[in-house]
Amino acid sequence: MKFNNRNVYISEKAKIGKNVRIGDNTVIYDNVIIGDNSIICNDCVIGEPVNDYYFTSSYENPETVLKEGAFIRSHSIIYAGSVFGENFSTGHRVTIREHSKFGNNCRIGTVSDIQGYVEFGNNCWLHSNVHIGQQSKIGNFVFIYPYAVFTNDPTPPSDTCIGPTVGDFSQIAVGTVLLPAAEIGKHCLVGAQSLVGGKYDDYSLIIGNPAKKIKDVRELKSRNTDKSHYPWPYSFSRNMPWEHEGFENWKLKNGYEND
Amino acid sequence: MKFNNRNVYISEKAKIGKNVRIGDNTVIYDNVIIGDNSIICNDCVIGEPVNDYYFTSSYENPETVLKEGAFIRSHSIIYAGSVFGENFSTGHRVTIREHSKFGNNCRIGTVSDIQGYVEFGNNCWLHSNVHIGQQSKIGNFVFIYPYAVFTNDPTPPSDTCIGPTVGDFSQIAVGTVLLPAAEIGKHCLVGAQSLVGGKYDDYSLIIGNPAKKIKDVRELKSRNTDKSHYPWPYSFSRNMPWEHEGFENWKLKNGYEND
Amino acid sequence: MKFNNRNVYISEKAKIGKNVRIGDNTVIYDNVIIGDNSIICNDCVIGEPVNDYYFTSSYENPETVLKEGAFIRSHSIIYAGSVFGENFSTGHRVTIREHSKFGNNCRIGTVSDIQGYVEFGNNCWLHSNVHIGQQSKIGNFVFIYPYAVFTNDPTPPSDTCIGPTVGDFSQIAVGTVLLPAAEIGKHCLVGAQSLVGGKYDDYSLIIGNPAKKIKDVRELKSRNTDKSHYPWPYSFSRNMPWEHEGFENWKLKNGYEND
Ligand SMILES: CC(C)(COP(=O)(O)OP(=O)(O)OC[C@H]1O[C@@H](n2cnc3c(N)ncnc32)[C@H](O)[C@@H]1OP(=O)(O)O)[C@@H](O)C(=O)NCCC(=O)NCCS
Ligand SMILES: CC(C)(COP(=O)(O)OP(=O)(O)OC[C@H]1O[C@@H](n2cnc3c(N)ncnc32)[C@H](O)[C@@H]1OP(=O)(O)O)[C@@H](O)C(=O)NCCC(=O)NCCS
Ligand SMILES: CC(C)(COP(=O)(O)OP(=O)(O)OC[C@H]1O[C@@H](n2cnc3c(N)ncnc32)[C@H](O)[C@@H]1OP(=O)(O)O)[C@@H](O)C(=O)NCCC(=O)NCCS
Repeated sequence: MKFNNRNVYISEKAKIGKNVRIGDNTVIYDNVIIGDNSIICNDCVIGEPVNDYYFTSSYENPETVLKEGAFIRSHSIIYAGSVFGENFSTGHRVTIREHSKFGNNCRIGTVSDIQGYVEFGNNCWLHSNVHIGQQSKIGNFVFIYPYAVFTNDPTPPSDTCIGPTVGDFSQIAVGTVLLPAAEIGKHCLVGAQSLVGGKYDDYSLIIGNPAKKIKDVRELKSRNTDKSHYPWPYSFSRNMPWEHEGFENWKLKNGYEND
Repeated sequence: MKFNNRNVYISEKAKIGKNVRIGDNTVIYDNVIIGDNSIICNDCVIGEPVNDYYFTSSYENPETVLKEGAFIRSHSIIYAGSVFGENFSTGHRVTIREHSKFGNNCRIGTVSDIQGYVEFGNNCWLHSNVHIGQQSKIGNFVFIYPYAVFTNDPTPPSDTCIGPTVGDFSQIAVGTVLLPAAEIGKHCLVGAQSLVGGKYDDYSLIIGNPAKKIKDVRELKSRNTDKSHYPWPYSFSRNMPWEHEGFENWKLKNGYEND
Repeated sequence: MKFNNRNVYISEKAKIGKNVRIGDNTVIYDNVIIGDNSIICNDCVIGEPVNDYYFTSSYENPETVLKEGAFIRSHSIIYAGSVFGENFSTGHRVTIREHSKFGNNCRIGTVSDIQGYVEFGNNCWLHSNVHIGQQSKIGNFVFIYPYAVFTNDPTPPSDTCIGPTVGDFSQIAVGTVLLPAAEIGKHCLVGAQSLVGGKYDDYSLIIGNPAKKIKDVRELKSRNTDKSHYPWPYSFSRNMPWEHEGFENWKLKNGYEND
């Protein structure tokens, strides 16, 4: 229904892999590289020119790389000059600015806004309506829930720009603000609607406005069982690379021995 | 100005009622049923195929029903597999996922995101930028204000999914987070930027992070008069079904005797 | 790459200035006036008809004025009946309703939602995902950060509509809610995720849920120097009109003697 080749415009300077489907009304600009077996839905813009384009006649669009297996849902805008690992996927109306770097198997939800100059590891999942400011640095298996906001200017407006960092496996719940330079360790849980500045150790459960570490996440029980739910990779495996063998086995083979 | 029949694509398997206007660049997919006297503005997608479409060659689009009098503003995306009562209306860029059920006279504001598998009664008004997670269950005459977020996973990520429930006439003010399984009774007011878990009786005024019931809403005065503003149906009637006869009379005829 | 004149529709009743570029798929409706040297990117709607259009056969579109140097990024929707000063710019997917008034050099970020019937002075910068309710009144050089929400109905739903006011140079940090009728003086800083009602003097530093004035902004140091960062125009000048001569000189010539 969607791939009728209506109003599709693909630059001659773009490289499109094998078995790539491109939806109606989508535009793919210069120097975009799309890997095999990708789906770009309708009304998307891939390789959106950066600001200089409007004001420089010699403008050359920076390279944009979407590796194999990308799945970009409709009305998304991806600026030129970013790199996305394998199986990158988005919801609708996502905006991703230049100089964004994503590892493999990352997902970004509907209407989320990535301001560029950010770095994500592998397997990060951002739900709908997440805002990531410039200079944020995020590890692997970090999940960020709706209306979470990552900031970078401590005393606005200023020329200081220091984004938050988040360690592997940490979870940032809905409506949370990470203040500039916040440092969240590995395996942390930041509770809903928290306002978080400062530095937190691995395994912290952080909540409140302003937020404090209230306990170790390993003390937080699941609602359905009496066991602790965290570190979550031991109790959650749907769509995770350890889905079939369990986290215990997987981690030993994949460099997460200490997790 | 808008209905010029430019780039409009309507599936032969869609059923379009009488006196329906469809804006430029709009796409209507298979098995969509649109009731009489509806307006679907420009750049909309109605009956967006669900995920299986991309991966199953035998895919059949689930039925989508928009009853009589729908008014969908531009750039909205409505997935296949939902049912909308009469006079359903949206702002711009609304996203509504599959298995959403809305009663009559509901409205959803610009950029709001309904994640599917939700149930709304009649006359619910969602303002701009509201996020409703799966498994939310909402009564009649519930109004939800911008940046309110309904969640469902208490210990993310997990396989638990228990949405909030909200009773008839309750009001959820801006920037509020309802935690998973929160239960808000009837005629409650949840104040701005509250973080709400747990269970609340009818007529509660709930505020804070974390939220508490601070008093009975019937004790909260209007700013303009000395009378109590709540329960609001007695003091607000613009565009309400009791606009002409008053709530007192209307409720007796409509099954709300006890409200 | 963007200005190929594909699917561009411009009303004969629109007036387009000199050296205006209009992107593909953009629609410009009746009685829109666009000043010289403007850029309207792809997929925009300028002069979106107001509600009456759908229901009144004699509908005439109100005038929409974008003065010289406008720069509207893609997928933005600007309703008919608003006036924008020189060098007005937007990010992507911005929605601006009727009866909005903006001074010169204002910017509005991606996905922001201006509900109409609002007034902004000169040089206001709204970042991504800001929500401004009706009847808000905002001075000059006011910057508003992501997920800030301006409200107007103190006891929803009601017929009362009293927006917040914000004085010159004040900064509204991320995730902040301004309650109806909040009055923020000049040179204030409202910290991240604050919930602000009531009235605040010039130079207040306001934080918390609910918010309080915690000190004078002039006591708040920059993270990089030992000096106070506020009032910020003395320490920040990038893209400001005082960039070359300094705020001290500029203010004397421009009517800000007392700032
Ligand atoms: C942090 C969290 C895990 C705590 O869960 P919990 O231990 O089951 O908490 P409880 O509901 O038993 O509440 C314990 C106390 O902490 C308070 N509290 C809970 N979450 C809080 C939060 N995010 N901020 C501040 N206080 C919080 C509760 O009000 C309660 O206080 P009380 O003892 O005075 O009544 C949970 O609140 C949370 O944020 N979950 C994530 C929701 C989410 O964003 N999911 C992903 C999107 S669907
Ligand atoms: C809950 C609400 C109705 C209370 O209104 P109110 O009784 O007039 O409250 P007041 O402004 O007189 O404040 C009373 C006290 O409660 C505090 N307070 C008010 N609203 C609060 C809230 N949402 N959360 C926490 N504290 C709140 C005030 O700071 C004040 O504290 P103080 O006595 O220490 O100064 C109001 O704050 C609210 O949330 N309104 C809804 C706004 C909205 O979202 N409208 C719809 C979109 S336009
Ligand atoms: C208000 C603000 C400037 C305070 O900065 P600061 O003085 O450097 O504050 P600190 O980080 O030293 O914290 C001082 C205390 O205030 C608390 N605090 C800081 N900001 C707070 C806020 N917004 N609300 C409530 N409490 C806050 C801290 O938790 C800390 O408490 P503690 O002493 O008990 O540990 C800062 O928090 C802020 O909001 N910055 C704006 C961020 C933003 O939105 N930037 C623009 C978008 S990028």
